[in-house]
Amino acid sequence: MNIVLLQNKLKEGLGIIGRGTSKSTSLPILKNILFNVKDDFLNISATDLEIAIKWWTLVKSGKDGSITVPYNSLSSFVNLLPDKKINLNVENNNLFIDCEDYKTQINSISADEFPIIPIVKEKEKVKINSNMLCDSLLQIIDIPSLSKVKPEISGVLFFFNKGELKLVATDSYRLAEKKVFIKNQTTGSFSFIIPQRTAREVVNIFKDFSKDIDIVFGDNQILFKVKMDDFDQSQIELTSKIIEGNYPNYEAIIPKEYKTQIVLDREEFLNKVKAASVFTSKVNEVNLEFSPEQGEVVIKSSNNDLGNYTAKTSGRAEGEEVKISFNYRFLLDGLLSTKSSEIIFEVSDESSPGVIKPVGRSDFLYVVMPIKN
Amino acid sequence: MNIVLLQNKLKEGLGIIGRGTSKSTSLPILKNILFNVKDDFLNISATDLEIAIKWWTLVKSGKDGSITVPYNSLSSFVNLLPDKKINLNVENNNLFIDCEDYKTQINSISADEFPIIPIVKEKEKVKINSNMLCDSLLQIIDIPSLSKVKPEISGVLFFFNKGELKLVATDSYRLAEKKVFIKNQTTGSFSFIIPQRTAREVVNIFKDFSKDIDIVFGDNQILFKVKMDDFDQSQIELTSKIIEGNYPNYEAIIPKEYKTQIVLDREEFLNKVKAASVFTSKVNEVNLEFSPEQGEVVIKSSNNDLGNYTAKTSGRAEGEEVKISFNYRFLLDGLLSTKSSEIIFEVSDESSPGVIKPVGRSDFLYVVMPIKN
Repeated sequence: MNIVLLQNKLKEGLGIIGRGTSKSTSLPILKNILFNVKDDFLNISATDLEIAIKWWTLVKSGKDGSITVPYNSLSSFVNLLPDKKINLNVENNNLFIDCEDYKTQINSISADEFPIIPIVKEKEKVKINSNMLCDSLLQIIDIPSLSKVKPEISGVLFFFNKGELKLVATDSYRLAEKKVFIKNQTTGSFSFIIPQRTAREVVNIFKDFSKDIDIVFGDNQILFKVKMDDFDQSQIELTSKIIEGNYPNYEAIIPKEYKTQIVLDREEFLNKVKAASVFTSKVNEVNLEFSPEQGEVVIKSSNNDLGNYTAKTSGRAEGEEVKISFNYRFLLDGLLSTKSSEIIFEVSDESSPGVIKPVGRSDFLYVVMPIKN
Repeated sequence: MNIVLLQNKLKEGLGIIGRGTSKSTSLPILKNILFNVKDDFLNISATDLEIAIKWWTLVKSGKDGSITVPYNSLSSFVNLLPDKKINLNVENNNLFIDCEDYKTQINSISADEFPIIPIVKEKEKVKINSNMLCDSLLQIIDIPSLSKVKPEISGVLFFFNKGELKLVATDSYRLAEKKVFIKNQTTGSFSFIIPQRTAREVVNIFKDFSKDIDIVFGDNQILFKVKMDDFDQSQIELTSKIIEGNYPNYEAIIPKEYKTQIVLDREEFLNKVKAASVFTSKVNEVNLEFSPEQGEVVIKSSNNDLGNYTAKTSGRAEGEEVKISFNYRFLLDGLLSTKSSEIIFEVSDESSPGVIKPVGRSDFLYVVMPIKN
């Protein structure tokens, strides 16, 4: 293997695939990344056997071939090189890197020892804007529970139906649903669950690009693919296992009615819940008193050791007086994820879930269970 | 105690004194801060018995008095309040905080239980610009060794002589000396050692202000004092213990001569040492080969598991060929602290210390011991 490419290009590729390497020491080869050169394409890949990330680009190649090298050392080193031409050359199973005054030899492991990255057999394919997908995932990504008892809620549900994708996450204390527009019609409806970690990596890798992502759904595998640059034909692929099992019938959990509704300034309410959090006890309990007649919500918290707190916030309200308590963390998460300056908060009684929604758009809702006394 | 002040002002004061509170749980009162109101001045203080930080300001006061409250909760809470008038009121040993819609009661501890902060009896007093002092401390602050065997080198030496202050730090592997201009003449020469932690807090508290710091030196105590604002008469005081014992005769360690000198571009050399660090073994050894005839330094490192590295950097050189090895961390620290675009590097032989100095100024030098083979 012998190629020449610019430092900046190699740095870009290494930056993208790095998160696919394994942190575990049980299989040292997973700390390495695979370089493969064929027909003037450099393809570098990393995998931890759960996910795999590939990046490729057109390069000036003198000789095809492949090798694996330790990711951390290579990446630290390449980041320190000047943005000039780098020559990568494999001899006797070692990688030699030359860049201006710098000459380095990195001990390597044969490409034969690198795991084979599965090819996803396409059953369905969807096209979606990467910004839109990543922003939407960010609204729900922290919710899934990592409990091993219910693996199906440890991931994010992707539910496609015609021109729409619903992203759903729950940990059984709260649930969020986000609707995203997709660019092509799907033939029917289909769904799969991706691990929370995969969702995070999709966001990490693709969030800064406004490109089309192809989502290819196959047997037990999912592939996210983006063409980055027409000129050097660079491309990124993220392959991941999907979670087996059926997602719970989450729509049954979303309340169809409410007794009391109030429209609040999001920022102000958020701040007053945050301030209440300073005075909560171990269960993180914040008490809300909805008073539609006064058009306000009173926010209270107290802690025997520390003291107590009261604040109120005004809004347009309808319905009955309701007292209800929530875990402040779940309230904050919902308020932070609801992207509008005003929010709608709907409740019924102290033991029924509350619903938070944006004002002026119907693409998001957040259901949160109360703390029952 | 009953006062009114703006949220922003209280937030400023709490931000400054916070680092004086104790992290230890053995004396819970040290997690509290003392509020004291007298003659329209609010004085808040924190101490962990090693250092003490005080901040005061003119306020609208209804009633004198004092109380202590838990710092963390108070500070988190105040930071979330809007920048409006805050009323602080003590009743039955509890602090009541009112700010617009927010009403809070914080459980408090009587001021009698708060330790007395020592008053520094002035033996010497020096005036120095805070920016200049902090920037200078930053150049040497990471060097002191925290070894308990030699407590005197666990701090920073302040050595005053006429119009000059020398700041010195060493861990016996390297030593840095920084000279700072002071605004007033001192009567004679005198010196003291302040704990590294105190030096860090001086930097943390005063680095963003361009004000005069008064340094007051007393028996076993040192006081750093800054008047912040003439209008509200706000002021900050940091009191600290000093380290007893005599600082080693460090000037004897500084080489008076050299065999080889080279002037190098700092940024380039720094980068090439950083890149070398990727390939060092456990002792962090980087090998330098000074070749005055070629006008260059060759930088090498190698690691049996990982591979090896060579780079070179050019400069104006004189003297003999010298091969010498250093711990790359110590080299990097010295290069990062030497604030000039070109640096002078002087060496003699493989077992004598090297010296790094800025080009064009004589206010800093960094002595570094080689790794002997």
